[in-house]
Amino acid sequence: MLRGGALIGQSGGPTAAINASLAGVISGLFENECVTGIYGMKNGIEGFLRGDVIDLKKCFSADEKGEKKDLKRLETLSLTPAAALGSCRKKLPPPESEPEFYEKLVGMLTELDIRYFFYIGGNDSMDTVMKLSSYMSVMSVSKSNSDREIRFVGVPKTIDNDLCSTDHTPGFGSAAKYIATTVQEIIRDCAVYTVPAVTIVEIMGRDAGWLTASAGLGEIVTGYSPDYIYLPETAFSLDSFLSDVRRALERHPNVVIAVSEGLMDKDGRYIGEGAQSGVADVFGHKYLSGTGKALELLVKEKIGCKVRSVELNISQRCASHIASLTDIREAFGVGEAAARAAVGGASGCMMSIERKSASPYGVEFVPKDISTIANAVRTVPREFINEAGNGVTRECLEYILPLIEGEVNHTYRLGLPEFFVF
Amino acid sequence: MLRGGALIGQSGGPTAAINASLAGVISGLFENECVTGIYGMKNGIEGFLRGDVIDLKKCFSADEKGEKKDLKRLETLSLTPAAALGSCRKKLPPPESEPEFYEKLVGMLTELDIRYFFYIGGNDSMDTVMKLSSYMSVMSVSKSNSDREIRFVGVPKTIDNDLCSTDHTPGFGSAAKYIATTVQEIIRDCAVYTVPAVTIVEIMGRDAGWLTASAGLGEIVTGYSPDYIYLPETAFSLDSFLSDVRRALERHPNVVIAVSEGLMDKDGRYIGEGAQSGVADVFGHKYLSGTGKALELLVKEKIGCKVRSVELNISQRCASHIASLTDIREAFGVGEAAARAAVGGASGCMMSIERKSASPYGVEFVPKDISTIANAVRTVPREFINEAGNGVTRECLEYILPLIEGEVNHTYRLGLPEFFVF
Repeated sequence: MLRGGALIGQSGGPTAAINASLAGVISGLFENECVTGIYGMKNGIEGFLRGDVIDLKKCFSADEKGEKKDLKRLETLSLTPAAALGSCRKKLPPPESEPEFYEKLVGMLTELDIRYFFYIGGNDSMDTVMKLSSYMSVMSVSKSNSDREIRFVGVPKTIDNDLCSTDHTPGFGSAAKYIATTVQEIIRDCAVYTVPAVTIVEIMGRDAGWLTASAGLGEIVTGYSPDYIYLPETAFSLDSFLSDVRRALERHPNVVIAVSEGLMDKDGRYIGEGAQSGVADVFGHKYLSGTGKALELLVKEKIGCKVRSVELNISQRCASHIASLTDIREAFGVGEAAARAAVGGASGCMMSIERKSASPYGVEFVPKDISTIANAVRTVPREFINEAGNGVTRECLEYILPLIEGEVNHTYRLGLPEFFVF
Repeated sequence: MLRGGALIGQSGGPTAAINASLAGVISGLFENECVTGIYGMKNGIEGFLRGDVIDLKKCFSADEKGEKKDLKRLETLSLTPAAALGSCRKKLPPPESEPEFYEKLVGMLTELDIRYFFYIGGNDSMDTVMKLSSYMSVMSVSKSNSDREIRFVGVPKTIDNDLCSTDHTPGFGSAAKYIATTVQEIIRDCAVYTVPAVTIVEIMGRDAGWLTASAGLGEIVTGYSPDYIYLPETAFSLDSFLSDVRRALERHPNVVIAVSEGLMDKDGRYIGEGAQSGVADVFGHKYLSGTGKALELLVKEKIGCKVRSVELNISQRCASHIASLTDIREAFGVGEAAARAAVGGASGCMMSIERKSASPYGVEFVPKDISTIANAVRTVPREFINEAGNGVTRECLEYILPLIEGEVNHTYRLGLPEFFVF
């Protein structure tokens, strides 16, 4: 048994489920003899480097001795949107080019007697886990100081569902439930008038179309789904789009279309590029927005009917009031499994979700080698998209559907959901 | 007792509660001996003029004879967003200028043996009720055919809460609950990073700031509310706005600001005017949008920090998944009261909501003369806005708070809320 403290961080864009994973890791570490302390990094690795650490054991203890966990507080945390510990977007330098950075970091971990390191995030965060664990394993071997072992485990999180080596990612199910529900409401809203009108709903996901595909879930449940759905995985043609819209307008006056923010033409140019700043973040991601607006202007110019675009925007990642119970439970479970795996000896891995059965839906949590995950992207496979590239297949929808099932039970006070506060 | 059929229409922009009012009117008319039939206009008065009518008595009967109402179906209808009967935006001509229009309409009503006419909508719809009832009363007197009596009753509906002669309007509470909840989630989402950033949330309401004021509800419940709130009722100054933003950025890095889509400068020019088409609807309303975007560009240019704008958009009027139970119950109640009042002899009126007590909150439904309501707008009074014009008072928030209380119980199937289908 490796005896020492545990440190947990949250990183990257927040989701409605990332705090459930934090609660899961805390829960898995609690009442564990070899875990001497549980700490949280404020604002991820960036805050930790500034010495910004919070005592989670104290915070989530039901008794003064810290022997029992406070289940009620853990539940409130699980249902609170966005990263309770704060987040950051920091890319670590390659270990070989800046060893002094790692020496400092490991020094700080050693000072706190940290033996377990958990990082909850997307593929950029898994890059952090990979670099730290590979640095440490090289260190341990070269300096033969294996007594300075620190175990690094990643916990997946992203609404985009674009991590490799996992069936899906915590956070995706809640975002998909928000999107599917909202798109259904929008379809009802749009249906009230008889004047021909086109509504374009722009959905997040960067280069992965999973979230946009979720807009179609109503098709296999309630019958309400957009006329067309365009994912970034197939090249987008303005001409095909316009003829799709014209064809839809012949069928009925209230056309609703779902588009991914990351749509690109066959030459790899973003459709929304004209309408945006072109600024890239530290990882080289371009901030995408304006795809819906660009297509709105196109329809206005070329077809001339009433048209509007709706950006679902950041509610996609923080609308915890309509979170998926399946998602919140899995996010908690994967965090708890990560804690147990680390105590059991795992390191250099991410705890992933394996779908053991489609019907009835069932999953298992399994550690996967971090190097197969970091910096890689899993997009929607071509066979999940229809031939014309303007819709998704039933198989795609059936893959997503179980992830949105179940409703969470928020505590409301005076009409507003209660959130966790440190 | 006036014996004959009843006709119900829905008009104007949809809300999350307008179907609850439809359910309420149907419920109030059912099992009423003198009401021989209950009909719905498809797409309001416009569809009715085309002869598009639906038999609601048949549709909501629990038995074949139509003696009992189907409570389950009425409940599902109550929780379904947007106008189930369809809507329209038709302004009736003045009765004196186009009497032939009214002759045709009244002829069609007579043919269906309609004695009760209900129109659920905002102030434009109340204009329809006013014109019809004044035309009919002049007709009845001049032609002394008082046996052709038809009673016209308006049922209030608008998320904007801008109708006169009523404490508030059905539909507002649900929109306010959606806005307050979403703004809280956005504030949590924005709080995760340490990089200075401004998030501008654009909220509906045209020239009335009630919905935008709702963004501040967290202040008296959870402590989460925007740094500043700007309503269209006070002249908006770009300079004061910029110094507010700068001051907020000095306090903390994550600034969230709520702005109304209808903000105007001291000369009455819309702030979002540059970014919009300037198209006006048949009532002369300008479609507003772009206020948030315009201010985003201003902050980017003048302050230079990270900034984004979020338009809450049509979810404000159709997010029934987070509807207010108080609102849905009142929307139903006001519809039911309208039905009973009409049967009891009322006409030329709108059923309004009177707040009988603030704490505990309690209301009564009272008919009000339609001429005091039609085409008039009730904006946020100056004393509900702080002196600097960048926030709302506690009194304002306390007026809104009881309207968002309580959560509705949707039936979910496979993760999605079930909607009513005719």
